[in-house]
Amino acid sequence: MNKAKWIWYRGDFEIYHHMLLSCRRQEYGCDYPCQWHISRPEVSASFVKDFTAERDGVVRVVTRSKGMIRFGGKLHPVNEELRVPAGEHRIVVELYDIEKFPSFFIDSDVLVTDETWIAECFDRAPVPVGWKPGFFSAGDDPSVFPFEYADISPVSSEKIEGGILYDFGRETFGPVTVQIPAGERATLVYGESRAEATDPENALVRETLNSSDDPVRPARAFRYIYVKSENAEKIGVSAQYEYLPIEDRASFSCDRELVNRVWDLCAYTFHLNSREFFLDGIKRDRWVWSGDAYQSYMIARYLYGDPSVSERTIVALLGKPPYRTHVNTINDYSAYLIISVWEHYFAGGDQEFLRSVWPRVKELYAFIVSRLDENGFVVHRQGDWIFIDWGVLDKEGAHCAEQILLWRTHLAMAQLSEVLGETPEADYQKSAAKLYDKIYEYFWDGEKGAFIDSFTSGRRFVTRQTNVFAVLFDFADGEKRKSVIENAILDPDLPQITTPYFKLYELMALCKIGMLGTAQDYIESYWGGMLREGATSVWEAYDPTQKGEEHFAMYGSAFGKSLCHAWGSGPILLLSRWCAGVYPTSVGGETFRVEPKPGKYRSFAASVPIGSGKVRLRYSAPQITVETDVPGGTFVCGDAETPLEPGRRYVFKLNKS
Amino acid sequence: MNKAKWIWYRGDFEIYHHMLLSCRRQEYGCDYPCQWHISRPEVSASFVKDFTAERDGVVRVVTRSKGMIRFGGKLHPVNEELRVPAGEHRIVVELYDIEKFPSFFIDSDVLVTDETWIAECFDRAPVPVGWKPGFFSAGDDPSVFPFEYADISPVSSEKIEGGILYDFGRETFGPVTVQIPAGERATLVYGESRAEATDPENALVRETLNSSDDPVRPARAFRYIYVKSENAEKIGVSAQYEYLPIEDRASFSCDRELVNRVWDLCAYTFHLNSREFFLDGIKRDRWVWSGDAYQSYMIARYLYGDPSVSERTIVALLGKPPYRTHVNTINDYSAYLIISVWEHYFAGGDQEFLRSVWPRVKELYAFIVSRLDENGFVVHRQGDWIFIDWGVLDKEGAHCAEQILLWRTHLAMAQLSEVLGETPEADYQKSAAKLYDKIYEYFWDGEKGAFIDSFTSGRRFVTRQTNVFAVLFDFADGEKRKSVIENAILDPDLPQITTPYFKLYELMALCKIGMLGTAQDYIESYWGGMLREGATSVWEAYDPTQKGEEHFAMYGSAFGKSLCHAWGSGPILLLSRWCAGVYPTSVGGETFRVEPKPGKYRSFAASVPIGSGKVRLRYSAPQITVETDVPGGTFVCGDAETPLEPGRRYVFKLNKS
Repeated sequence: MNKAKWIWYRGDFEIYHHMLLSCRRQEYGCDYPCQWHISRPEVSASFVKDFTAERDGVVRVVTRSKGMIRFGGKLHPVNEELRVPAGEHRIVVELYDIEKFPSFFIDSDVLVTDETWIAECFDRAPVPVGWKPGFFSAGDDPSVFPFEYADISPVSSEKIEGGILYDFGRETFGPVTVQIPAGERATLVYGESRAEATDPENALVRETLNSSDDPVRPARAFRYIYVKSENAEKIGVSAQYEYLPIEDRASFSCDRELVNRVWDLCAYTFHLNSREFFLDGIKRDRWVWSGDAYQSYMIARYLYGDPSVSERTIVALLGKPPYRTHVNTINDYSAYLIISVWEHYFAGGDQEFLRSVWPRVKELYAFIVSRLDENGFVVHRQGDWIFIDWGVLDKEGAHCAEQILLWRTHLAMAQLSEVLGETPEADYQKSAAKLYDKIYEYFWDGEKGAFIDSFTSGRRFVTRQTNVFAVLFDFADGEKRKSVIENAILDPDLPQITTPYFKLYELMALCKIGMLGTAQDYIESYWGGMLREGATSVWEAYDPTQKGEEHFAMYGSAFGKSLCHAWGSGPILLLSRWCAGVYPTSVGGETFRVEPKPGKYRSFAASVPIGSGKVRLRYSAPQITVETDVPGGTFVCGDAETPLEPGRRYVFKLNKS
Repeated sequence: MNKAKWIWYRGDFEIYHHMLLSCRRQEYGCDYPCQWHISRPEVSASFVKDFTAERDGVVRVVTRSKGMIRFGGKLHPVNEELRVPAGEHRIVVELYDIEKFPSFFIDSDVLVTDETWIAECFDRAPVPVGWKPGFFSAGDDPSVFPFEYADISPVSSEKIEGGILYDFGRETFGPVTVQIPAGERATLVYGESRAEATDPENALVRETLNSSDDPVRPARAFRYIYVKSENAEKIGVSAQYEYLPIEDRASFSCDRELVNRVWDLCAYTFHLNSREFFLDGIKRDRWVWSGDAYQSYMIARYLYGDPSVSERTIVALLGKPPYRTHVNTINDYSAYLIISVWEHYFAGGDQEFLRSVWPRVKELYAFIVSRLDENGFVVHRQGDWIFIDWGVLDKEGAHCAEQILLWRTHLAMAQLSEVLGETPEADYQKSAAKLYDKIYEYFWDGEKGAFIDSFTSGRRFVTRQTNVFAVLFDFADGEKRKSVIENAILDPDLPQITTPYFKLYELMALCKIGMLGTAQDYIESYWGGMLREGATSVWEAYDPTQKGEEHFAMYGSAFGKSLCHAWGSGPILLLSRWCAGVYPTSVGGETFRVEPKPGKYRSFAASVPIGSGKVRLRYSAPQITVETDVPGGTFVCGDAETPLEPGRRYVFKLNKS
């Protein structure tokens, strides 16, 4: 028999924990619910298993839900012994759970709960049950997310006016424990910066407690904890780091020490934001945004080579139909989600996961398509947010970047339906081809040699963002691609991209067109700049012209900026993908390429996960040593290609590029 | 200012309480979840109000939910004082509630929560908030349904083997309180009958308790409570009757004492089943079934003349889209629900309620239409249950009765959309007309002079059920109607209807074609028969050929039959509608007819609610006295019509009919 595991209606685990997560943001003493519809898990579900008991046995359905068992033509209560005679049986467990979600566990000699059970929610076709690592014994509880904890202590404390300031040495996340003696009160101010912690009025997270409050406070982001109390020295403060036990399968170091520190900064930042799902930032918003997550999936594929957080995030963001608004209310974010599903499948090759989300992907796609205009363009409809990026974009009428995302979405649907052997009802490929022509017809400006943002406004603005997408998503090719690069991407007179979010897309596009050096420079100036400012995790944004506390302000709040933002971990992706140069060329990395480019580095060492294996590289100009532990690899240098046999060490001479 | 009231996202109250209700059935010590998808309330909602404060004031958002207030450009916590300066303001309250549903209350000099607030669930257009009577002060809690309670005591107790049997004298519903001394245990067996209570193995509801369990047990149905314990005499037993404070606006009595007792039995049964929503039965299933509810709406319009339970039931049954199965999984039950919405509107004229459910009605209709066949017929699709009635129906292929319901549904959609001033996107009227022709083409059997059940099977069965619908829903008219009556409804050789559920439709049809006397006879034989068997509420079914405990068995269980079933209250409808003869002829009863027919009764007295008023009748052959307190009435006797002026007493001579 398989290992016994807690099982539930597939998706409920993610939906439930995403619901909790979406309600955890706090600001200025307020609980700040997220600004879009939150899906709830199922109230009830039915679980079926046909099995053969080799001998007489006893089964116990262990559950915190309520319900009953249909077995042997009778009803039986849960959490009690059920005698199972040897022979062939069907068992049906019907559960409801008003507070959490229906889940249960059987571990016996004759029957266990495992992935072979089938679940039904009464209004949908039966599907395989859901389960997750971490829930393998009767005492486990799937409504409690299985984080791990490590004690952490302040590295220093400091008496300041009105209390004591504790510094934990670096950005962290977890529950703080405060022991308040009877009769005492204290205000706890959380700070990602010293300035924030010592400014109770403007700090985002603060709370006033007395001795009867739970001493263990909810897990939150902080580096500093300011205990404001007349008797602060009597108040014990300790904390735990709450984290996922997920290991890095990637590493990178080079001859530039600053770059190595940036890598570590990025990896740590990424771990802090890898929780139930990929967060945007651990202090703010503490929500799951599909655009941010899209970048996180790409980073995670390189840093972790582990699909678990990405899968949970995709399931949480898909939520439950009906789709009445775009994901996070943003048109582009729905598109990223569908594109993500394809890219996730391509990287991991998990058809079973794909099948489980496919019905929702189709519904989301249908929602997108239902709101297109007569040209098949994405346009602004009631409730929409055409985002793409902050900054000077011309969003009047249909925006070109949205159309490129839509085109990529049509293609992703075509790719996905092909994998699943479905004859697409709507011909996705045809939709993509038609849109391709329309985009050229309406958005290509022959004089400017680039795509314009809007044909409606008459302004014919060319922006980096739109043209970055044309290259990044392989929309422009041949002469048009060259033109876009020359006339938009490399045009110094176009407004610069100022958000780190879109900057990652730009750097990816630059790497893609061979300008790794520009990305390498930017890593040292932008990420290195933050390090010089004392950052212990990557900030949401960094402007080198700002001074002191100016760095912490954003969205009109003195400490509104997140100092630990997932999208800042992009260097992991840039260095693994374009410097180490490892990337899959077929589903699941069954074939892959190793095309290293040292760029400005004289030496580097990298490990990069691919499929179930790893590529190890060690470069010291001009030689590179390459080793893989899985088949399918090809070393590429210019036009020369060399198949890589697993377990063999290859030494190549590398042209600097 | 309006009276302050708790407010929430409209529908959440019903959805929440329906969720709880759907999880309360118990059988044989098991919790028995209902067998269809259960909707959940919203996790989060946003509430907006633009208002003018005449002077400076203080507002407190009282809530058990979590969230924040957007006011004056800042965030503010809930449950704290918020200063509101004189002037014009917008206040936004954003709440989430993982456990219940978001709701809150403001009562102040400058602002109150009332029906003028607007709610938003982020993915839908803003709508007026929901509220209900019973939640008018800060201490109220909308997650607790506002039942009323009356102490009730056993009328007798009896020592029997192993314990004490308490008899509460009649069927009732509510929490039983058992005081179990420390160290003692007791098994509580609930019985609608003495036989059930004293048969712990086969009784549907039983539980074993010890002194540490909550002495107040969940509200359940019972007449008898058997306390099985070695020391039963030490265990205190008391109970409360849990009920809605809803008054009868109808009354009926006649010269047949048995009929008067039937009326009382029916009224009491109906009250027991009128709870958060209309139940099918209070012991089993304790669920809300749309077909059962359809009959209850009709009965309630006469007995209560109060729309509140019907409204809640309609909202609960509509639940939340998407619709992936029919209501209660039954095709006919979806149709009844839409027809009910029309009939409910016609009786009460509440356009505001209609507007609030209309989007869901349209979605449900779209679901129905999406599953029709190429002829526009309802056919069995995956997950469907073509019910109509138990008994010998020919359900191969499209069934005629389903088509008649669909035809009525198309018409109801046409009527509803006309009221709301919508140009129906799908031409409902046209759909009805097309279906009308198709039904005659495929189901009318000229030789048999009646509608056949199925044209697919080739058996050309004629059943009462189908032809009852043809008359009841005014599908057949003119010669066809006469033929249906003669060749089906009055044909003694056709199989009899055996279920009390469908029997009510048949009796309604018989009354409609002028055969009140048959219904009057049936009231005395069927309902009177139950009374003779000692019923204290109307049973789910009654077969006079059964003896003793045979009456209590159903669905293969010794006590599976519900002894308190709402559909048994039909005589209320029959006597009010066809004997007293009061019925609306325009929306809200603005015009109505009084067309009394004594049938077999030599005298009767009746009060019948109509619109906001009442009609009082007193008949003693051959004279009838009629009085109304609202305008719009017309007295009808044969071809003679007399307008009824409110407040005037009329005396007419009535032909026996």
